[in-house]
Amino acid sequence: MVSVPSISYSITVRLEVPAGGRAVSELTAAVEHAGGSVTALDVTASGHERLRIDVTCAATDTAHAGHLVEVLRAVPGVTIHKVSDRTFLMHLGGKIEMQSKHPIRNRDDLSMIYTPGVGRVSQAIAQNPEDARRLTIKRNTVAVVSDGSAVLGLGNVGPYAALPVMEGKAALFKRFAGIDAWPICLDTQDVDTIVEVVRAIAPGFAGINLEDISAPRCFEVERKLRDLLDIPVFHDDQHGTAIVVLAALTNALRFVGKDLPHVRIVMSGAGAAGSAILRLLLAAGAKDVLVADIEGVIHASRPGLSPDLRWIAERTNGADYRGDLRGALAGADVFIGVSAPNILTGADIATMNEGSIVFALANPEPEVDPMEAREHATVVATGRSDFPNQINNVLAFPGVFRGLLDAQSHHVEEKTLLAAARAIAGVVSDEELNANYIIPSVFHPDVHQAVAAAVRSAVQEPRE
Amino acid sequence: MVSVPSISYSITVRLEVPAGGRAVSELTAAVEHAGGSVTALDVTASGHERLRIDVTCAATDTAHAGHLVEVLRAVPGVTIHKVSDRTFLMHLGGKIEMQSKHPIRNRDDLSMIYTPGVGRVSQAIAQNPEDARRLTIKRNTVAVVSDGSAVLGLGNVGPYAALPVMEGKAALFKRFAGIDAWPICLDTQDVDTIVEVVRAIAPGFAGINLEDISAPRCFEVERKLRDLLDIPVFHDDQHGTAIVVLAALTNALRFVGKDLPHVRIVMSGAGAAGSAILRLLLAAGAKDVLVADIEGVIHASRPGLSPDLRWIAERTNGADYRGDLRGALAGADVFIGVSAPNILTGADIATMNEGSIVFALANPEPEVDPMEAREHATVVATGRSDFPNQINNVLAFPGVFRGLLDAQSHHVEEKTLLAAARAIAGVVSDEELNANYIIPSVFHPDVHQAVAAAVRSAVQEPRE
Repeated sequence: MVSVPSISYSITVRLEVPAGGRAVSELTAAVEHAGGSVTALDVTASGHERLRIDVTCAATDTAHAGHLVEVLRAVPGVTIHKVSDRTFLMHLGGKIEMQSKHPIRNRDDLSMIYTPGVGRVSQAIAQNPEDARRLTIKRNTVAVVSDGSAVLGLGNVGPYAALPVMEGKAALFKRFAGIDAWPICLDTQDVDTIVEVVRAIAPGFAGINLEDISAPRCFEVERKLRDLLDIPVFHDDQHGTAIVVLAALTNALRFVGKDLPHVRIVMSGAGAAGSAILRLLLAAGAKDVLVADIEGVIHASRPGLSPDLRWIAERTNGADYRGDLRGALAGADVFIGVSAPNILTGADIATMNEGSIVFALANPEPEVDPMEAREHATVVATGRSDFPNQINNVLAFPGVFRGLLDAQSHHVEEKTLLAAARAIAGVVSDEELNANYIIPSVFHPDVHQAVAAAVRSAVQEPRE
Repeated sequence: MVSVPSISYSITVRLEVPAGGRAVSELTAAVEHAGGSVTALDVTASGHERLRIDVTCAATDTAHAGHLVEVLRAVPGVTIHKVSDRTFLMHLGGKIEMQSKHPIRNRDDLSMIYTPGVGRVSQAIAQNPEDARRLTIKRNTVAVVSDGSAVLGLGNVGPYAALPVMEGKAALFKRFAGIDAWPICLDTQDVDTIVEVVRAIAPGFAGINLEDISAPRCFEVERKLRDLLDIPVFHDDQHGTAIVVLAALTNALRFVGKDLPHVRIVMSGAGAAGSAILRLLLAAGAKDVLVADIEGVIHASRPGLSPDLRWIAERTNGADYRGDLRGALAGADVFIGVSAPNILTGADIATMNEGSIVFALANPEPEVDPMEAREHATVVATGRSDFPNQINNVLAFPGVFRGLLDAQSHHVEEKTLLAAARAIAGVVSDEELNANYIIPSVFHPDVHQAVAAAVRSAVQEPRE
């Protein structure tokens, strides 16, 4: 795959050059010749002899960033002072903070916010616990809970390494849905302990967002918490992904003119995301699905099926196909990969049906090079931000929780997830829809409100 | 005791009066005649016929507030529209929020704050977990943990009713020490479960502030957590109170010209606060202390002593006094009450030694009416904000945690508490010191920084 310079590998190099020479003009050329991209060039001090310049440039990865520094150092007359990594700078000291909504200027403020005034508020809630939703932060607060067992593509890195991700998630909750989320990173990976801890801390929150907990433990944690708690429990890696995939697939099918009940879907991956996607596809009306894991396509007679895989076998592969993923692809309409990098080639995609749809969502390296896939498929989507059609959970979770919180929901139902997917798909109008725009940007001005409104309505509908 | 109007019982009454008559001028007089106090009178709409006015007034309690509304209604020509409780208004929707430190304006911001950029930060922490203090919120974040079993003077009101108090505490942490605190209200009162939960959520925090957990469970929770965790655990009801009492006593003794090792101290109350105060007094050099609980003064031969009371018996009451609190007071230099309202009279205080010091800290009703006590004692302090010398934990906990966090402390030692008490006392200069000013205001511009600096030094001293 072609790597392009990315802002997430952006460095700022503070350097000095002779004021008079050609060095300044050579800096940008040198970086670009080496495959980097200069995004800012600030002269921070100037004298007759020397200039101090902050050169900010995007690299393709850490090694490349190091190479760009050396390239700059090699420009005649340049002295390198300091190299800062812009991403690390943004994370220094953490990315979120707590803020008081009211100033505490004097004794009067103190008497109302804290003792003795707060005592009357506590008493009111003691008499009527439902008032906690009115008189405390509960109604707008979500816990972002992780045990650090499956963080991004990094694996089991533990609670400390999970913290920057959960902080980022909390920041997104606020940015896109005005929700106050706080990260809770757990020093345990035992299912029952996780359940007990989350149950115990639940009073201060109106929703639980589980995050980056590895399968199959995540299924059990979620199931048990749903039974125990009276606030919604949402596992973003499962439900968030499933919502966005269904939204994207809805629009991709709209574009190629096919119907969900009549297409053959081949999936790769039966973990947290894969299982949740399958459930939601079936709930939305998909009838012909095959799911492959590392041992090949799952079928009912495969020996040693776990309860989760058995559930899949009973609902998919009606024709009892017993082969590998490649073979299953032949003639299929849709491929959805949530598995491993580079397991397919353009030639495999070429065997699919006319107007084929490829969602290669393994991150950061998709199941198939999207450039190659694009040569044979009509619609291609990935999880990457540097290709069109990014399947990004940020499209779903802020609006979903906004809707759940506004409706004071006690649980998450399938119809809620379906409504969220429909809302995301609906943001793309017929005029806008094309092969490179099946899904809106997370910065689309309407998407989060549309999801929230759809979720609110779904919650408030009479239960079936 | 005389009740005075308090801002914590403040209401805003929206009413209409004829524009021409005398009604407007009668409003304030009517409220004041009824024992209330008008703190604001805003005309919010004016016409030729009618005025709409928001009258804000302080009452002594809820019933009195209701009475003031009736008094206003009785003024000729007045129509009452709406009555708002100012304290409840401040608590609506909660008092704190989460905020992102950086704007998320576009894809570039997203790529650095969240994926893919955050992946590199996670990887750095996975390789070196100590980096969590540098690259996450951990270093400035404290959990305010309560099980709602002993909230203010309200008793066991549970986690929901505790939440407004913990939010207020979090707001104070930010206001006075720049600390990001988040409330964790627990749906359990089982010691081992509390310990397990706090242990599990600890990775995201640099300190634990336990709050309003009833004795004797709080002792066990604290002891177990201190053994398990590598971040400081501070029980504010114990340690915060003890620090401020010691600070106030230090200055009261300075004022009356006595020394801690040579005075007789009689305490009432052997719960969480009482035990902690005793420990710190002994650590500071007190030699002659008697502690009474509801059964009288504790002595070594009293049958049925719990381990906690035995600990007290072994370190106090050297003369083996076996009587009640009243009797113990005769000839004592210092009384410290953290027990129950109105158990002593001015006559009891009159039996104390010359230059006596009375800290009657039961809240909201002290052990002895402070006005009566003041007739016989040289220095009187209470927990109330409407008398001089308020013993207020807000003097201690923000600065203590600021110091602990800045020093990256792993535990709380007795020398740290002593240093904090000395720092608070030291803020009152010899010129300022008098019977009504033994302790600074929580709004004193220096006190929290002084405490933080003293704690930081104490932590960084070589361990004994």
